[in-house]
Amino acid sequence: MIVNGQSYRPIWYDINEQTVKIIDQRALPHEFIVVPLTTVDDTIRAIKQMYVRGAPLIGVTAAYGVYLILTQKVGDINYLKQECERLKAARPTAVNLFWAVDTMLNTISNEPDPQKYLALALKKAGEIAEAEVDRCHKIGQHGAKLIENIAKNKNNEPVNVLTHCNAGWLACVEYGTATAPIYVAHDQGIDVHVWVDETRPLNQGARLTAWELGKHGVSHAVIPDNTGGHLMQHNMVDLVIVGTDRTTYTGDVANKIGTYLKALAAKDNNIPFYVALPSSTFDWHIRDGIGEIPIEERNPDEVRFVQGNFNNQTCHVMVPPAESPCVNYAFDVTPAHLITGLITEKGICDASEDSILAMFPEQKNEL
Amino acid sequence: MIVNGQSYRPIWYDINEQTVKIIDQRALPHEFIVVPLTTVDDTIRAIKQMYVRGAPLIGVTAAYGVYLILTQKVGDINYLKQECERLKAARPTAVNLFWAVDTMLNTISNEPDPQKYLALALKKAGEIAEAEVDRCHKIGQHGAKLIENIAKNKNNEPVNVLTHCNAGWLACVEYGTATAPIYVAHDQGIDVHVWVDETRPLNQGARLTAWELGKHGVSHAVIPDNTGGHLMQHNMVDLVIVGTDRTTYTGDVANKIGTYLKALAAKDNNIPFYVALPSSTFDWHIRDGIGEIPIEERNPDEVRFVQGNFNNQTCHVMVPPAESPCVNYAFDVTPAHLITGLITEKGICDASEDSILAMFPEQKNEL
Repeated sequence: MIVNGQSYRPIWYDINEQTVKIIDQRALPHEFIVVPLTTVDDTIRAIKQMYVRGAPLIGVTAAYGVYLILTQKVGDINYLKQECERLKAARPTAVNLFWAVDTMLNTISNEPDPQKYLALALKKAGEIAEAEVDRCHKIGQHGAKLIENIAKNKNNEPVNVLTHCNAGWLACVEYGTATAPIYVAHDQGIDVHVWVDETRPLNQGARLTAWELGKHGVSHAVIPDNTGGHLMQHNMVDLVIVGTDRTTYTGDVANKIGTYLKALAAKDNNIPFYVALPSSTFDWHIRDGIGEIPIEERNPDEVRFVQGNFNNQTCHVMVPPAESPCVNYAFDVTPAHLITGLITEKGICDASEDSILAMFPEQKNEL
Repeated sequence: MIVNGQSYRPIWYDINEQTVKIIDQRALPHEFIVVPLTTVDDTIRAIKQMYVRGAPLIGVTAAYGVYLILTQKVGDINYLKQECERLKAARPTAVNLFWAVDTMLNTISNEPDPQKYLALALKKAGEIAEAEVDRCHKIGQHGAKLIENIAKNKNNEPVNVLTHCNAGWLACVEYGTATAPIYVAHDQGIDVHVWVDETRPLNQGARLTAWELGKHGVSHAVIPDNTGGHLMQHNMVDLVIVGTDRTTYTGDVANKIGTYLKALAAKDNNIPFYVALPSSTFDWHIRDGIGEIPIEERNPDEVRFVQGNFNNQTCHVMVPPAESPCVNYAFDVTPAHLITGLITEKGICDASEDSILAMFPEQKNEL
């Protein structure tokens, strides 16, 4: 997508410099910094410390991480497997991480000639990235129809979409998941306005989604996470679209902490609540989202300190008393019954086992 | 209550200096600043700019504000009435503001001797403050029984109470409303742990409630506003208690933005959700909270900038892109059907017209 007149992705392989490069998302929106990844440790740090974040992007980054392991020691499959385990442990919730690493590992394990590992790994990581782009674009096309249908009944008033966190192109290579329908609808000339939940503690909504939408010229406003319920009570939200870090095949959705609260409010006010996801985000092994999806507990300092711009410098201010403990769960699980539908690359289905498996029948064997 | 070994209230009349004094709550928790109020303009600024906040404290401050009008021009009832209107316009949601000003005005209007206005106003403002203290203490005694009952079934595990915003002594002269049951239970030796919603945008939970509880030695942890639903899904919340800025006689509750979302989550997880309030916070004229209670829209910069401590200085960092609009509604309305009960100075009642009027039968004539 476009940043200051230049086309960017959040991760790419720089052919000239023969290096993997990423946008350091921690510095946005007030600084735009590109960082090279040259080792698997760089990759693990980038995932853990959230230079990159968002389920699809974590997967793509991990795929390039497997390539980087091979650049360090190319012939040793045991070493590769061991380093892959370390890579998979970088974050616990996004299923794309495990999926991407396993896909890379399978591809390489099936190649008899170790001389071909490196080129093969680079090609496969690129394919994983392109597959995400393709899925996100299709999600956008399917989801834009929802916005278009609402627009028909709005008499030239904008369609108000609420989103939580950043499931934009920064999280997904291109288009995004939750934002893809918004970008596609906007590009079709539909008047869309986005309520951007700031998304504490790390403010990915305020910092990243607002930045993305602004760069693309989409009308939006940043709101505290507390605000959505009030807006819904007063007919100021037509549609909620969020992303997900892991979705069970029964339709339970793990996403950024606070998503569940918005789903409850949408239900209470009869507002459609959609989750946009590439099929790589489905977990085909888990039935009960609330009981079985592990929820990452992160450093309390992410709650204690807020990052922002002060006198043109990025700084972190402490909000509560220094001696007060803080607690920082990164995700929550929205049960399927609160979800109107799932927007996938293959179309829109209900958040139910039957409907999901009807759309992805090839997965029945996995269960 | 105790601050650094000394007993404080958030507002008091300093007899030696013959001045009304307040704690400037904007500077907490990292600085403790006391400010004098010498004119009605001081008072209006203190209410508008939230040196003082919280429905009961706004009422008490406004009562002293009426006294300060009289110190400026004592005999002129028309001038007094006109300045009272200006005072009442300082903030739109808390009904205590209008109630306190009208009570002061009636008291003075009924006094035939203008020579007695000043002393009478000072006495009446003090009585309004003491009446709040008395009501809050009673709220604490009634509410503590709820905590005590839960504790009986917890086998020495702490009772986990979630609260939103600051309805503590800083909002209420002493004890607080939502915190009063917590303080009373804690002082009785019951093991209470408080989940403190940080309460964006102004972070009154992280800044004020955490500070209060910490000073009093109550176990607590600060959480992002997004977290409560997840905690409730995982049996980590036994009870929710919040305050209110205005409650209809039908039981609808206007409180800090985001309260409604916590009430939905409590309902969804069968967790009792109580609202603590002195009867001065009831609005006996409004039936439909969502339709009729005016919701203040405040300066978007309160969302855009976060106040915190950096290098031992208070500073405000900008979080979203400078060019992104922000929207800042201060309150939302929780409908009565989501509320388990109201904890008042007269006891606990249901959030329903019948139950409220059974507890406050003298108000039937008001309707």
